[in-house]
Parts: sequence; structure tokens; C-alpha cells
Amino acid sequence: VLGGSGQQGGGIARRLARAGRRVIIGSRDPARAAQTIESWRASAPIESAGYTDAAAAADVVVLAVPFSSADGVLEACRPHFRRGALLLDVTVPLTFESGTAALVPVAEGSASEHVKARAGADVRVAATFKTVPAQLLNDIDRPLDCDEFVCGDSAESRTEAAALIAAVAGLRAVDVGPLQRARSIEHLTLLAIGINRRHKVHDARFRIVGL
Amino acid sequence: VLGGSGQQGGGIARRLARAGRRVIIGSRDPARAAQTIESWRASAPIESAGYTDAAAAADVVVLAVPFSSADGVLEACRPHFRRGALLLDVTVPLTFESGTAALVPVAEGSASEHVKARAGADVRVAATFKTVPAQLLNDIDRPLDCDEFVCGDSAESRTEAAALIAAVAGLRAVDVGPLQRARSIEHLTLLAIGINRRHKVHDARFRIVGL
Repeated sequence: VLGGSGQQGGGIARRLARAGRRVIIGSRDPARAAQTIESWRASAPIESAGYTDAAAAADVVVLAVPFSSADGVLEACRPHFRRGALLLDVTVPLTFESGTAALVPVAEGSASEHVKARAGADVRVAATFKTVPAQLLNDIDRPLDCDEFVCGDSAESRTEAAALIAAVAGLRAVDVGPLQRARSIEHLTLLAIGINRRHKVHDARFRIVGL
Repeated sequence: VLGGSGQQGGGIARRLARAGRRVIIGSRDPARAAQTIESWRASAPIESAGYTDAAAAADVVVLAVPFSSADGVLEACRPHFRRGALLLDVTVPLTFESGTAALVPVAEGSASEHVKARAGADVRVAATFKTVPAQLLNDIDRPLDCDEFVCGDSAESRTEAAALIAAVAGLRAVDVGPLQRARSIEHLTLLAIGINRRHKVHDARFRIVGL
């Protein structure tokens, strides 16, 4: 989990560890990441490493740094990714200029396609964990009780990503198709943020009815 | 309901009539619309009229024609809308080129902002009824059991639109803010279509958890 010391990455890391996965936090500052991990008192061990070492050690890499940092992290990690690794992009490029949340325009169409273009040809990319609220993810004893959307560059990427989602207690994975659907998922996040603000709640999230 | 003989408009018209609202179907061909209404054997009376007569007679106008027909219908109706009327845009500009669904780019940002720009200065605009599946709406004895999203050009527009939504059995209105949010709602529709196809269901729709 690159950026696993943050709220979103930390929540994903701890919930995956609890689901029995071996988890490595990739961080700019592995010593500080180790302190964060220590503070979690997690039931399962979580390791820490630098970005590139973490990338080199994983078959599934979660990109949980802020979108604005993604290019630098990807450039550093690109030579280190395992051949055929699955990269899960969880970023949402938000801006809060002029007092209201909006999605940053991305030339490739979505954050995930932007990431795909920079991940290297040997890396598969799927988008997920974009809509479950970060602070809820990170409050790991609270039930999630919602759906999480998955799209990806192949049926196989989506299936693998969906299996990881489904391993997290309280999450149902909903496959929504090709990676271009990532922008629609990013719009869901934008809507959820607006709903939180407007309705004075904190954890608005989604459930598909009729599925 | 302009375009009320179609699946979406017909479902909205019949469910609003059932909720006790007086409903007029606005149609290019009012005589045929009258036949359609006859075939519904609705419990409450529904009237038919031409587009402009229907527009002139309504405080709330539902724009339920295909997005590709919206410009023409709005141009015809603009001089006839009541001052301060509320126009509910339910259109979603979809294309199915190259075998996969996508949103048509709209210069104004969303279908609803496009509609706003053409509705006339005295008309208020809100977006809603974009995500409940048309064929489910039109199968009026089936429960909807989901949320419907509302955004609009003022708090007052949103409140009025939300009240109309809430009058329909089984629908909860979720206010998501200003009219620019319409594009995010249109993305929800795109996601639902993809989910239907991919998971071989027909009525994928949304429920907000945590609200």
C-alpha cells in the first residue's frame, strides 16, 4: 500500500491485514511509517518499506498517495514493479477551489487512466476503493456495509481486484467494466462529498439496489 | 410531463398521478398520447395536450423527451412557460457507439446546464429522475425502493423537486447541491447501465448508506 500511512491507505492496509493478507506499507519515510504501524496495535503484522522496495515486493500494489503525488511515486516505482503486478488506483483528483468540490480535469479521462499511462506496460491497472470514505475505512472497527466499485483494464484485473474487495468485511465488489468507467466512479466520490456536506453526515456511501 | 408517452415520462406521469398530482402529458401528437393514457387505465385521470399547451398549463414541467429532442421542444415551449415555473430535467445524453455506453460531451457541462441555458430566464431548473430505471418507473406496481438524486439552480428549486420525488412511493430524495452536480448524476446513470449489462440485471439503482 503506497501511501499507507494516510487515512485511506491506512484503512485499506489494516482491513486487508485483518482479512489475512500480508501487507507492506510503502512510504517516503519508512521509519515514520513503522511508528504509525506501531500505533495501530494491529492484530496482524504490517511491514513498512520505502516506495520502491514495497513496489518490488508486491503482486498487488495499492496506489493510495494523493493524486498530486502519483506521478512522482509512479516514476520512482515503475522500474521496480513486478511483471504482471496489479496496480489498484484509489486516487480521486479533487479540488476545493471556490468553496465547492469539483473533479480536476484529467487529460486521459480519469485518474486511473492517467495512472495506467504511467505505470509501465507490464503492470495491470484497476480502479477501486475510490468511494468508501477514508475516515470510515480507517476507523477499522466500524462496519462498512456498502458496495465498492471496480473497473479495470481487463476482466482478469477486475476479477482479482473484486476478490480483494470482497475479502474486506462488509464490502461487496461491483464490477462496472473497463478502466474508462473510473471517471464515473470518481463522480460518485464527488457526489458523496457533496452529500456529506449538505446533509451534515460523514460517511455517505453507496449501495446498488437490484443487484 | 413533456414526452410523457415514453417509458420514463410515462412512468413519472403515472406515479405522480397516483401520488395525487394533477398530470398533463405534453406530446407532439396529443391524440396518440390520449390513446396511450387510455391504455394505462390509470386510477387517477391524466390529460394530454401539445407541448406548448402543456407547458403553459403547468407550474412544474418535467422534460422527459430524448436529450436529442430537447433543444427543439425547449425552443417551442420557451415563450409558453409560466413565470417562475420549475423545469425538471430528467434527460441523460447517452451514446452507444462502439458497443459501449458513454455520456455525450455537453458544452455546458451537463444535460441539465444545457437545458438551463435554453429554458428562459424566468424558468427555474432542477435535475432529477435521472437514475431510476425507465422500465422500472413505467412498471408502476413494482416498488422503487431506492434513492433519487436532486440538484438545482437554487435551494428553493431543489426543495420543490425533492418534495415531488418524495411524493412518489418508494423514492427518497437526496439533495446533492447546485445544478453543476447534474453531470455526476448522469455518470450514475451510465454506471447503472453498465452494471445492468455486466451483471445481467435490469433495474440497478442507488441507495445512499450513512444518510
